[in-house]
Amino acid sequence: MTNNFFIDENKLDKLAALAVNTGLSIKAGQNLLITSPVEALPLVRRITIHAYKAGANLVTPLFSDPELTLARYEHAQNSSFDLSADWLYKGMGEAFDKNTARLAIVGDDPMLLENQDPEKIGRSNKALSKASKPARERITSFKINWNIVAWPGRAWSARVFPSLNADEAQAKLAEAIFSASRVDTVNPQKAWAEHNSNLLRRSVWLNQQNFEYLQFKGPGTDLRVGLAENHEWMGGASKARNGITCNPNIPSEEVFTTPHCLKVDGTVQSTKPLSHQGTLIDEIKVTFKEGKIIEAKATRGEDVLNKVLDTDEGARRLGEVALVPDSSPISKSNLLFYNTLFDENAACHIALGQCYSKCFKDDNKLTDKKIRKFGGNSSNIHIDWMIGSKEINIDGVNRDKSSTPVFRNGEWAEQ
Amino acid sequence: MTNNFFIDENKLDKLAALAVNTGLSIKAGQNLLITSPVEALPLVRRITIHAYKAGANLVTPLFSDPELTLARYEHAQNSSFDLSADWLYKGMGEAFDKNTARLAIVGDDPMLLENQDPEKIGRSNKALSKASKPARERITSFKINWNIVAWPGRAWSARVFPSLNADEAQAKLAEAIFSASRVDTVNPQKAWAEHNSNLLRRSVWLNQQNFEYLQFKGPGTDLRVGLAENHEWMGGASKARNGITCNPNIPSEEVFTTPHCLKVDGTVQSTKPLSHQGTLIDEIKVTFKEGKIIEAKATRGEDVLNKVLDTDEGARRLGEVALVPDSSPISKSNLLFYNTLFDENAACHIALGQCYSKCFKDDNKLTDKKIRKFGGNSSNIHIDWMIGSKEINIDGVNRDKSSTPVFRNGEWAEQ
Repeated sequence: MTNNFFIDENKLDKLAALAVNTGLSIKAGQNLLITSPVEALPLVRRITIHAYKAGANLVTPLFSDPELTLARYEHAQNSSFDLSADWLYKGMGEAFDKNTARLAIVGDDPMLLENQDPEKIGRSNKALSKASKPARERITSFKINWNIVAWPGRAWSARVFPSLNADEAQAKLAEAIFSASRVDTVNPQKAWAEHNSNLLRRSVWLNQQNFEYLQFKGPGTDLRVGLAENHEWMGGASKARNGITCNPNIPSEEVFTTPHCLKVDGTVQSTKPLSHQGTLIDEIKVTFKEGKIIEAKATRGEDVLNKVLDTDEGARRLGEVALVPDSSPISKSNLLFYNTLFDENAACHIALGQCYSKCFKDDNKLTDKKIRKFGGNSSNIHIDWMIGSKEINIDGVNRDKSSTPVFRNGEWAEQ
Repeated sequence: MTNNFFIDENKLDKLAALAVNTGLSIKAGQNLLITSPVEALPLVRRITIHAYKAGANLVTPLFSDPELTLARYEHAQNSSFDLSADWLYKGMGEAFDKNTARLAIVGDDPMLLENQDPEKIGRSNKALSKASKPARERITSFKINWNIVAWPGRAWSARVFPSLNADEAQAKLAEAIFSASRVDTVNPQKAWAEHNSNLLRRSVWLNQQNFEYLQFKGPGTDLRVGLAENHEWMGGASKARNGITCNPNIPSEEVFTTPHCLKVDGTVQSTKPLSHQGTLIDEIKVTFKEGKIIEAKATRGEDVLNKVLDTDEGARRLGEVALVPDSSPISKSNLLFYNTLFDENAACHIALGQCYSKCFKDDNKLTDKKIRKFGGNSSNIHIDWMIGSKEINIDGVNRDKSSTPVFRNGEWAEQ
């Protein structure tokens, strides 16, 4: 592998250490499951060393390769696209039940599947969503500590920096990842401790307000997002149900909670393209009625968007609403990463599909039935898309209909 | 990846096609599970394409990386070495139960673990053997069609050709693999059809003879290997219980059957070093009494050998005996591959541990209890080691004590 030649190895090692010690906060005796593109092997090796040094018992990597994904689209028979490796995700679920931590590395070409048949992509995503449920529901419910970090993949780099040559593009994306992940600081773990306390302050304020709904207003957007009963705002560090406080996303700039899946009304348009499992979906415009999307348009990828919305009953309803100021470091970088892990931190966003049970008060005691009763959505998907910009205003509305400015011109109303 | 630059891409593609169409004989609608070192990605990609072209529904790769293995030995706490990813092997077993075919690619450094603690290696192998049982027992019992092929790994190449530079060594090992695997022929599939019919002829003759035991004689070896009741000789192509005729090993030059695990007596010495999961074990000398090894020595790796023998009750008994003439192409190459897939085809060999239930008459109807009654061994290991050379004579002895020459001076007595 020569790929890491164009990447600052010192910062790469700091990212690996941060992922293990702040991202996962792995505890001695835990096992670790890593999912990663093969290309990110240099990062996987460093993460594995840091994990063992931190006392991990057994690190198991599961690698994927974009060429193998494409081989399927190009050569497999039609019935292939209704299948997924259910036995593998079931096994992952069993590993999580035994307190295995989970680290995901993203880094693939966001437009990998742009020339493939949307119908096959849709069926394949649906099969994957269904098969991967045992793994996904343990992650979204924070049964265990988990973390996602990014590797500057060659194809991804070329998408973000199309005017640079491949090596320069990779070096540049690496620096953008390091900067957004705060590993270009002297002490990344300390930087994250400070960052976490800022996000906590915002969450505490929003929880004190306990708004009935948020009113989003901006160009093409007039959306009322009812919040779930007993919703709780979160941001940054998060205590998993195994007792370990982890930082699930590196980077992360958001505070977020659970909308009421029956109480979302109005229209909203996306402010950045959504890169969904290899397809770019741009200029989304949807209308909600009583929580459900009744109309959906996009100038690009509308086919895939509609396939996504048809995944299941909950795919047309919201599972998350998140607040990010327009002045966030990732927004200021002015880069479009074509990857949710980054782009969702450049703007306020909403997510279709599964809610995080973690975003409820006393979530440890909640049953699926109670979450549903409180307005939490259930689905095999969870897809974030950006609706924030410097033109967005948000008001928090209380049960007595009094209203409090939350965002003005894309920034927190109160600093 | 630049590794495949030193490998003939045309022959590599022929190897991939051979593995899929002759090795596995994959059938339309089957899924395929591939285990492979990350380094062999160029071969995995070609195999995947050929598998989809042949009608495979879903190809799932599981990659390993030697650096991650070493990171564990160098940095993990002591308790790590009693663990294995049991959930993963259980899942593989479930996949095989649903008729998933299995392709393994070997290619790692045979001496990867030479500087690691034998006690940790022993515990780790034991944990792996135990955890991987659900996968292994479905393979050894031929529940599904399976195949093993080789990739000329860089570190492995350097072991086989220590006097060449890394690129030349890899190119040379690639050619040795292609030659042994018969992909340097015009039509490898046809070459294998002919080869299979030769191996079948030997098996049919041995089955007609139905010897009570084989008597091995040579320097340091005077060994009587009783054969299991209802044993069946096999070689080359093999019909799995899912009805598909596969070639489990590429290359393969052996005919083999199941010894009686209580009826092996005498002494035997190895004629080639055994490379076992990263450790080289050389000049093995053991004594059997009533099927059980009661004394074991080796001039190198004796620690690891003794750990292997202590894996479980069946690890000290034989599960396979195999006949290979000294004139086999791999023997004639005069190379020591440090890899059983190749070296076992250079000489007659025996295997410690689990027997192949396939090597019994009417194996489809056999229970574990019956196999045991017939003398089939049971263990979590199956480790082949070479006892043949041009100085070995073998007689087949019938129940009436009449004897027939089987091998003379390392060659089949009857051509």
